[in-house]
Amino acid sequence: MTEEPTKHQYLPNINSPADLRRLRVEELPQVCDELRHDIIHELSVNPGHLASSLGVVELTVALHYVFDTPYDRIVWDVGHQAYGHKILTGRRDRFCTNRKLGGLRPFPFPTESEYDAFCCGHASNSISAALGMAVAARLHGEQRQVVAVIGDGAMSGGLSFEGINNAASTPNDMLVILNDNNKSIDDSVGGMNQYLLRLTTNTTYNNLRYRASRKLFDWGILNEKRRKSIIRFNNSMKSLLTHQQNMFEGMDIRYFGPTDGHDVIELVRVLRAIKDMKGPKLLHVHTVKGKGYKPAEENATVWHAPGKFDEDTGERLDVGKPATKCPPRFQDVFGETLLELAQQNPQIVGVTPAMPTGCSMNIMMHALPDRTFDVGIAEGHAVTFSGGMAKDGLLPFCNIYSSFMQRAYDNIIHDAAIMRLNMVLCLDRAGLVGEDGPTHHGAFDLAFLRPIPNLTIASPYDEPELRRLMFTAQQPDMGTFVIRYPRGRGSVVDWRCPLEAVPVGKGRLLRDGDRVAVLSLGPIGTEVAKAIDGLSDEIQPHVAHYDMRFLKPLDEEILHEVGQRFSRVITVEDGVVTGGLGSAVLEFMADHGYTPTLHRIGIPDTFVEHGTVTQLREICKMDAPNIQRIILKLL
Amino acid sequence: MTEEPTKHQYLPNINSPADLRRLRVEELPQVCDELRHDIIHELSVNPGHLASSLGVVELTVALHYVFDTPYDRIVWDVGHQAYGHKILTGRRDRFCTNRKLGGLRPFPFPTESEYDAFCCGHASNSISAALGMAVAARLHGEQRQVVAVIGDGAMSGGLSFEGINNAASTPNDMLVILNDNNKSIDDSVGGMNQYLLRLTTNTTYNNLRYRASRKLFDWGILNEKRRKSIIRFNNSMKSLLTHQQNMFEGMDIRYFGPTDGHDVIELVRVLRAIKDMKGPKLLHVHTVKGKGYKPAEENATVWHAPGKFDEDTGERLDVGKPATKCPPRFQDVFGETLLELAQQNPQIVGVTPAMPTGCSMNIMMHALPDRTFDVGIAEGHAVTFSGGMAKDGLLPFCNIYSSFMQRAYDNIIHDAAIMRLNMVLCLDRAGLVGEDGPTHHGAFDLAFLRPIPNLTIASPYDEPELRRLMFTAQQPDMGTFVIRYPRGRGSVVDWRCPLEAVPVGKGRLLRDGDRVAVLSLGPIGTEVAKAIDGLSDEIQPHVAHYDMRFLKPLDEEILHEVGQRFSRVITVEDGVVTGGLGSAVLEFMADHGYTPTLHRIGIPDTFVEHGTVTQLREICKMDAPNIQRIILKLL
Repeated sequence: MTEEPTKHQYLPNINSPADLRRLRVEELPQVCDELRHDIIHELSVNPGHLASSLGVVELTVALHYVFDTPYDRIVWDVGHQAYGHKILTGRRDRFCTNRKLGGLRPFPFPTESEYDAFCCGHASNSISAALGMAVAARLHGEQRQVVAVIGDGAMSGGLSFEGINNAASTPNDMLVILNDNNKSIDDSVGGMNQYLLRLTTNTTYNNLRYRASRKLFDWGILNEKRRKSIIRFNNSMKSLLTHQQNMFEGMDIRYFGPTDGHDVIELVRVLRAIKDMKGPKLLHVHTVKGKGYKPAEENATVWHAPGKFDEDTGERLDVGKPATKCPPRFQDVFGETLLELAQQNPQIVGVTPAMPTGCSMNIMMHALPDRTFDVGIAEGHAVTFSGGMAKDGLLPFCNIYSSFMQRAYDNIIHDAAIMRLNMVLCLDRAGLVGEDGPTHHGAFDLAFLRPIPNLTIASPYDEPELRRLMFTAQQPDMGTFVIRYPRGRGSVVDWRCPLEAVPVGKGRLLRDGDRVAVLSLGPIGTEVAKAIDGLSDEIQPHVAHYDMRFLKPLDEEILHEVGQRFSRVITVEDGVVTGGLGSAVLEFMADHGYTPTLHRIGIPDTFVEHGTVTQLREICKMDAPNIQRIILKLL
Repeated sequence: MTEEPTKHQYLPNINSPADLRRLRVEELPQVCDELRHDIIHELSVNPGHLASSLGVVELTVALHYVFDTPYDRIVWDVGHQAYGHKILTGRRDRFCTNRKLGGLRPFPFPTESEYDAFCCGHASNSISAALGMAVAARLHGEQRQVVAVIGDGAMSGGLSFEGINNAASTPNDMLVILNDNNKSIDDSVGGMNQYLLRLTTNTTYNNLRYRASRKLFDWGILNEKRRKSIIRFNNSMKSLLTHQQNMFEGMDIRYFGPTDGHDVIELVRVLRAIKDMKGPKLLHVHTVKGKGYKPAEENATVWHAPGKFDEDTGERLDVGKPATKCPPRFQDVFGETLLELAQQNPQIVGVTPAMPTGCSMNIMMHALPDRTFDVGIAEGHAVTFSGGMAKDGLLPFCNIYSSFMQRAYDNIIHDAAIMRLNMVLCLDRAGLVGEDGPTHHGAFDLAFLRPIPNLTIASPYDEPELRRLMFTAQQPDMGTFVIRYPRGRGSVVDWRCPLEAVPVGKGRLLRDGDRVAVLSLGPIGTEVAKAIDGLSDEIQPHVAHYDMRFLKPLDEEILHEVGQRFSRVITVEDGVVTGGLGSAVLEFMADHGYTPTLHRIGIPDTFVEHGTVTQLREICKMDAPNIQRIILKLL
C-alpha cells in the first residue's frame, strides 16, 4: 500500500488466509473495515474497479475464514470483485502495482497465485469451472470444497445456466454463492426469509433431517427419485411462504437465503452451517455495490471504475475537462451518431448486453427507450435477438465489446450471416485495451470474423469515418455489417461531419509513394501516419499509405494497384497477425500472382498482458517507431 | 411423394395452411394420420430425421390450424422436427427431394419458404429469434403472433435461458411451446395438471381474470410490480399443488401445461385459449419421439435418423454389413481408442454435449460411467467444465461437433487456452458433412482456432493417425490439444495400430517429387494421393505430397524445405480457405522470404449447401480430379 494507516491492527499481519483464520470471529468486522479502507485508499490513486470489490469485502473475509484456501477453491465470477481476495492472499504489498505493466494482473489468474482458482475476466464461467473442480475432487477422493461466487448480472449469462443445469444432475457438493446486488429486489429481505434461513441452516435441524432421511432410505420408503421430489416440495413451500421464487428451486439444488452479505459474523455462521452438506447448494447473499463508501453506494455505475478520486471528498479527478480540447472517445461518437441515425431511420433499434454506459448506447436509451434493449450479460442472445428483429424488418445496431463477441460467434454465423440479415454489429474495445489485460484485448475479432461468408467487416480510421461507416451500414440491404473500433479517444476534434455513405469495400490512398506500400486498417493507421511523418524528407516520397477501411470485402482495385506497383508491402492492424488483414492481403496476392515481400505488423500469436496501450503497442512492435523501423528495413 | 396412398383424402388437397384451416377440427386427426404416413413412407426410401418429426405431427397441424401462418411466425428450434411443417406448407410434392443436392433443405430456411421463419440448424436459438420477431411486430404495430417450438433438450442450452430471461423483462406476447419428450418425467401428466390446465386456459375464467385485473389497475390497487408478484404467487400455488416445478415459474412467464401433445383436438383448444393472452407465455407439451411408428417409439435414439428401412417390418436396411470389409468410421476409432486410453490413464475423463452416440463416447460411458459426462446441449459449458477438471488434474477429452464448437469459441480462449490447460478438444464432423448442409458443415474450425495462442491443432490423415494423435494428446503437459476429423469412414481397414506418440508439430513426406509440392491436412489428403496416383508415370515424380498433420504449430522444417525446393505449392484442406492451412503457409513463406506460387484448395468463402460429400467436394473443387487439374496447371 502507498502508506500504512496507523489504525490498521490486523491487515499488516495477515500474509495469507491462514493468518486470518487464527483470529476470533468477533475480530472480523475490524478486518473488513481495514480491507475496505485499503481498497478505497489505493484505488483513489491507482484506478481500478471499486464498487464491486467494496460490495464483497465481508463475503471475501468470511470465505477465506471458513474455507481452507488454497486447498479449497474459490472461483470468482468476474475478477472485478476480487481486490479484497488479492489483499488477503499475500498480495497486499504488491497491490499498488495492480493493473500496471508487470504488476498484479487485473483479474485473478492461476499463474499469479495459487489462491486464484481459474481465469475470470469474462462473466458467467464460474459455475461450470467450479463444477469441474468439484468433480475432479470427487474422482480423486479429495475432501476439497469448491465455491463459485457469482453476481446476479453474471447469472443471466447462458453459461451460468448451463452450469447450474448440469450441476443439478452431476454428483457434486459444490456451493454457489449468488451475490445479489440488484437493489430492485430488496423487497425480498423480509422477516420470513431470515426465519427460513435460520431454520434451514440450523445445524441441529439439518442433522435431524439427515438422520431421518437416512432411516427412510434404509427402510426403503425414500429413494433417490423421491428425495428430489422432496427437495422440490420444500422449495415450493418456501417459495409460497416467501412470495419469492427463483430458478434454482426448480432444479433440485438446495437454496439458502437470502442473507445479508455485509454481516460478516452471520456469513461465517451460515457458511459453516452449510459447507459440509452433501449435494449442490446455493446461498443467496444480498450486498450493496460500493458498500462503505458513500459516493460509490449512491452511484455504483459511475463508481464501477471511477478513475482517480479524492478519497475524502469523493471528487473524481479525471472528469470534467472541457471536451472540446481533445478528440472525443469513439464511444461518444458511436452513442451520439446512433441517436442521430435512429431519429432519421425508424427501423433502427439498439441492443446491448449490459453495457449501455460503457458503449454509450445510454444516449439512445434515454431518448428512445422503446427502441433500445439492454438484454443483460447475454452476448449470444443479443445477436440472435437482433437476428429475429432483423428478419422482421427492424435494423438492429448490436454493440458488443470485441472480446465478449467471442461469446456470440456461432450466433453471428448461424443467426445472422447465413441469412444475410440486415443488421449492424458494432465491436467496441477492439484491439489492445490496456490495463484490463489478456482476457479483454479485442485481439481476435478480425481473424475470427474474416472466414465468415456474407459479412462486411469495416474499421474506421477516425471519428468522422466511424460516423460515415455507421451511416453506410444502415442503408437498405447492406446485409450483416461489422464495424470495429477501439476504446478511447480518436484523433479528430471536429468529429461531427455530415452523415454520408462510403462505398462498401473501398479503401483510400492517404499518401502516395513509390517504393513501399503500407496498408493499414482502423485507427492504428494514425501510428503509420506518425511513422511516415517522422521519416526524412528524402525518404517520405517513397512510402505510400493506404487506409483499407474494409477487411471484407477487400478493395481489390487498391490491391491490384499495390501488387503491380510495389514489391515491398507492410500491413498494419490492431489485431492478431494470425489470420487477419495481413493474411487477407497475402491470400489476395497469392491468388493473383503477385509476390511482394510482405511484412505483417499486429498483435503477435501470444496472449498479451496488461499495461497501458502505449506500453503494449511498443511491446507488440505496433507503435510508430517500430513501423518506421520496418519501413526503413524494407526500403 | 413417391406414390399416392389411396387412403389419403386430405393431404393431396392441402397446398398451404390456408387449406388446412378450412377443415373442421374433427377432421384433423385424419390429417395427422396421413401426415404421419407420408413422413414414414418417404423416409423409408429417402433417409432423414424420423423420430423427431413423428413426435410433433399433431403439434404441427394444430399450430398451422390455429395460427395465421405465414403472417404469424412459427420458429422451430432445430429443424429435425419440421418435416410435417414442410409437407403442410406447399412442399409435399418436393418432399422426395429432401436433403438431396438442389432439393429441399435439411432444415427450414427463410429463402426456401415464407413459412420458414428463421434458420434452425443449431439448437436453442428459437426463443431469442422469436422474441426479436415479437418485438418487431410490436414496434411495427402488427398484430402478429410469434411462436417458438423448442424441445426439452434444446431448452438446456444457455442461449434458451438467455432468451427466456430476456423475454420475461421485455414487453412481448410471445408463446413458447416446450416440446417435452423426455420419458423420464412422465409422472407429471397427472389429473391435477389436466385440471389446472383446463382451469387456467378456460376462456371464460381468463376473461374474468383480465377484466378484474384491469379494474384493479384502473383503481390503482394493482400495479406492474404487483402484477408480477401475483403471477409468481399463482405459479407457486400451481407448483405446490402439482409437486412439479420448473424454471419458468420463477420468471414471470405464465406457464400452461403439461398437455398431451398427441391429442390434436385438445391442442387446438388450448392454443386457441391462450393465443391472445398478453405477455410471454409457455405451453408445456408432452410428446413421444417416433410416435405412431412402433420401432421408432421403442428406440428413439436409433430412429433419430435411421437411414433407409422397410416400412412394414421396421427393418433398417443400411446396417448389419460386416464391418471388417470396409474401413471403420472415425467415430468408432475415436470411441474405442478413448476407452483404451482411459483404461490406461486414470486421469482421462470424457465430456460430450448430448452426443454420446453420435461421437461414440457411449463406448466409454458404458464401461466407465463415473468418468464420462453427458452435459446436455451445452457446448460452452462442456468446454469450461472440462477446463475446471483440467485445472485440478484430470485430463478431459471433450468431443464436440465442429460446427457446434462455434458455440464454445470464447470458452476455448478464456477457459482453456489462456491458462494452457491440459485438455483434448476433439472436433467431430469437421469439414463438409454432406446432407445436413450449411449449418452443419465443419467449415470454419481451422480458421477460427488458428488465431488462438497456446493451442495445438492437429488432424489425422487416417484412422491409425487418429489413434496416435489421441495417444499423443494425453501425454503429460501437452496443453490444450485440438484434434479434428470428419464424419464417416476413413481409409484403413486394419486400424488398431499400437498406441504411439507422434512428435508435436511434425508432418511427414508421403511421396517425394521435384516440381510441385502439395501440402495437405487431414483425411482430405487421400484425395491428393488419388489425384497423384491418377497422373501419368512421367508426371508423378514431379509431385511431392506432404501430410502436414499439424496446423499449429506448423512443421517449420518441412516448410523451409518446401520454400527452398519448390517454387510451386498447393495446399489442400477440408475447411474454408479464408484463414486456414493455406493462409498459414502463406504467412510462413512471407515471414521467411519465400515467394512460391501458391494455390489454396479448400471450401470457398460461401455457405456451401447440402448434398452428398462427393457432390459437394466436386462443387468446391476439392476432389481428386480438380486437385489433379491444379497440379497439371502448376507443373
